[in-house]
Amino acid sequence: MFPDPALTALRALLGDRLTTSPAVLDQHAASETHVTARSPDAVAFPETTAEVAALMRICASHGLPVIGWGAGTSLEGHALAVRGGVTVDFTRMDRLIEVRAEDMIARVQPGITREALNADLRATGLMFPVDPGANATIGGMAATRASGTTAVRYGTMRDAVLGLEVVLADGRVIRTGTAAPKSSAGYDLTALFVGSEGTLGLITELTLRLHGQPEAISAAVCAFPGMAEAVDCVIATIQSGIPMARIEFLDDASVRACNAHAGMALPEVPHLLVEFHGSPAGVAEQAARFGELAEAFGSRGFQWADRTEDRTRLWKMRHNAYPAIVASRPGATAVVTDVCVPISRLAEAVAETQADIAASGIPGPILGHVGDGNFHAILLVRRDDPDELATAKALAGRMAERALRFGGTITGEHGIGIGKKGHMAAEHGDAWAVMGAIKAALDPAGLMNPGKLVEDQ
Amino acid sequence: MFPDPALTALRALLGDRLTTSPAVLDQHAASETHVTARSPDAVAFPETTAEVAALMRICASHGLPVIGWGAGTSLEGHALAVRGGVTVDFTRMDRLIEVRAEDMIARVQPGITREALNADLRATGLMFPVDPGANATIGGMAATRASGTTAVRYGTMRDAVLGLEVVLADGRVIRTGTAAPKSSAGYDLTALFVGSEGTLGLITELTLRLHGQPEAISAAVCAFPGMAEAVDCVIATIQSGIPMARIEFLDDASVRACNAHAGMALPEVPHLLVEFHGSPAGVAEQAARFGELAEAFGSRGFQWADRTEDRTRLWKMRHNAYPAIVASRPGATAVVTDVCVPISRLAEAVAETQADIAASGIPGPILGHVGDGNFHAILLVRRDDPDELATAKALAGRMAERALRFGGTITGEHGIGIGKKGHMAAEHGDAWAVMGAIKAALDPAGLMNPGKLVEDQ
Repeated sequence: MFPDPALTALRALLGDRLTTSPAVLDQHAASETHVTARSPDAVAFPETTAEVAALMRICASHGLPVIGWGAGTSLEGHALAVRGGVTVDFTRMDRLIEVRAEDMIARVQPGITREALNADLRATGLMFPVDPGANATIGGMAATRASGTTAVRYGTMRDAVLGLEVVLADGRVIRTGTAAPKSSAGYDLTALFVGSEGTLGLITELTLRLHGQPEAISAAVCAFPGMAEAVDCVIATIQSGIPMARIEFLDDASVRACNAHAGMALPEVPHLLVEFHGSPAGVAEQAARFGELAEAFGSRGFQWADRTEDRTRLWKMRHNAYPAIVASRPGATAVVTDVCVPISRLAEAVAETQADIAASGIPGPILGHVGDGNFHAILLVRRDDPDELATAKALAGRMAERALRFGGTITGEHGIGIGKKGHMAAEHGDAWAVMGAIKAALDPAGLMNPGKLVEDQ
Repeated sequence: MFPDPALTALRALLGDRLTTSPAVLDQHAASETHVTARSPDAVAFPETTAEVAALMRICASHGLPVIGWGAGTSLEGHALAVRGGVTVDFTRMDRLIEVRAEDMIARVQPGITREALNADLRATGLMFPVDPGANATIGGMAATRASGTTAVRYGTMRDAVLGLEVVLADGRVIRTGTAAPKSSAGYDLTALFVGSEGTLGLITELTLRLHGQPEAISAAVCAFPGMAEAVDCVIATIQSGIPMARIEFLDDASVRACNAHAGMALPEVPHLLVEFHGSPAGVAEQAARFGELAEAFGSRGFQWADRTEDRTRLWKMRHNAYPAIVASRPGATAVVTDVCVPISRLAEAVAETQADIAASGIPGPILGHVGDGNFHAILLVRRDDPDELATAKALAGRMAERALRFGGTITGEHGIGIGKKGHMAAEHGDAWAVMGAIKAALDPAGLMNPGKLVEDQ
């Protein structure tokens, strides 16, 4: 339970911005996930790093868990308060602090969303390319090491974050990284905190690498006779060195859902959605080279989207594939899971997964960022049907095991949270214990987002 | 001193491959550095990970320090045995274990050099692009988070290493990363060990990202009226998004040395050396766009090197700039130091450094990987002149402080070792203590390369 002195101290610090209202607690007890958890005891809305540090000191002195909260879009229960405590909602720390156009970097607060950031950047000619689909916060994306459709070209949050300000478990504030493009000055703490899911500290500021808005963009959608041909085309494309900006796979079931619920009229076969960024001549060359490869792998129905509105429509369809797929089974809810494998094993991994899903009796379209070997299954289960939920979780578990068997990882971009902890020992062996040792060194009382990522202490 | 039972156990493990011969100890007590240190007590030449793990367990049980050794080319005394112990020389673990061409990855042992690796890769059409100049080992390059001339395009060792096998301080063997291109499964231990300078464990295997050998390459050298114009041209080039493969700066003193000692006949003004990789059309476009920019910034004497032999000559000159500069002052030895700053501050940082060096009375040509904001001073001091050595160290110290003042880092690619430890608190503040806490968690007895990177325990 929540000790009164802690509540008093937090209220003195934050006033109305510390709430125990049941509606707000409920809001922060649910996320886009199949994982259930209890509510936090309170939700805080700090406005400055100093407030976060003071909050952390209060919680540390009372042994209260502290959980970071961005937009609540994570998929494995990362931001749920499994042991109660204070959820720190970064909604009010959402500023773009500074753009340094010459250095192509920006400093932001963790609560800014990627769409808001890109809207703010538009006039500068720069962009922040990491795009996980959901309009997540940059802090949340860093915490889960998110990536998405453009990672094949611009990298993941691992590559996008140049430096951090972090509030540690004891309330100290540290800075990692610098504004220089690279450094070999000691342990890469930036990389350690990116992907640490709030278990080592709370990110209160980020320095991000930006990229120039491409001079020219071209996109296309192309149909393939089968999944294997589409995936083999992806492998050949990556190997040929064409700097694809996006190369996304939709299986036939995903295409069917997009046709029905996103107003498309594509042939119901596997598709690749591709995008090219560069100079006008560069884009034309890339597109021509990809076109030749796609044709060689049996692609037909190649539709170009050179106009902005056509491209927007195409990527809107891709981003809306998730709701379209969920809508394709009335009354269903989704268990969304991702794995990532070496690209050479991608066709096998997808084929085995499709067969496993088909045998399970529940629908589960597959789509993904195949240029990275990363794919998702959207497993559709009837709401409140525990048997189907168990089936979906078992399928997700087998996907994770399969990814390991193929030399891959149990998650390419969604993270561990609560949902995938059961597979960490299988992926990492003794290295999971090393993660636990780092956690214990930085958060000896186990207050930072307890119950996530590392083995329970 | 070296306890007899430890020596007996290590000899039983390694036979002749454990030596205490003075000549071998001396060899491992010196490196390309101005830092002096004592000899190790023994040098081991293991051939397998199991031997490294067994060695580590023996040393741990006797409280003996263990220091990794690659090619001895590090510049800040990283591989010196400041407290004695056993230096582990990876010369006999130098195999390319596996190339997975479809996945564009290779597994290697730590003792393979980058030149040997690229020779082995030649027929595959793939390459390992990280190029720090010296023919360092891949294990050593990972340990120091090396980069070099191609980092502007292909990244540093941070980007190049996909996974590791590491022997920990207690002899456990862990694996970090997978063969998948990305992962969000837990703390990024790969990034933590890359750049940890052997203070957290010994790297016994690496999985590396490879790149396709470029279809077309073009290079050029161009003269600028002054340093500021050359640097401003670099800034404009990076911002314009031209995917430079290399963009290197030589100041007038560096050019003078190359003319005298590397058989060149360049005008003795600041120069940029550039290289473009891509398709033939892509390279032609990049080169044309760079040419326009260079001209706008007053470049003259543009010399193209499209033929392989001309390119080889150009980059040989760049790689031999170091010995050429050392030779430019008879009887001198060099204190080589590097810093890295945000590119917007590069011209100021170089100008201040040049002025500081000019006022010091010792020669110090400047050159560097300016596309990354990274530059080096090669401070030439008379051998055995303690005053000049002190002057050079003071200059290097002021360079580090200047880099911090400009928002940069005390080292872009050389690392900390012994030489730069004194600046770690200034760069990292409390984050240096976090590094110490991680070190203490993973190596509580302080046996892994003691005296380096973290604060003395």
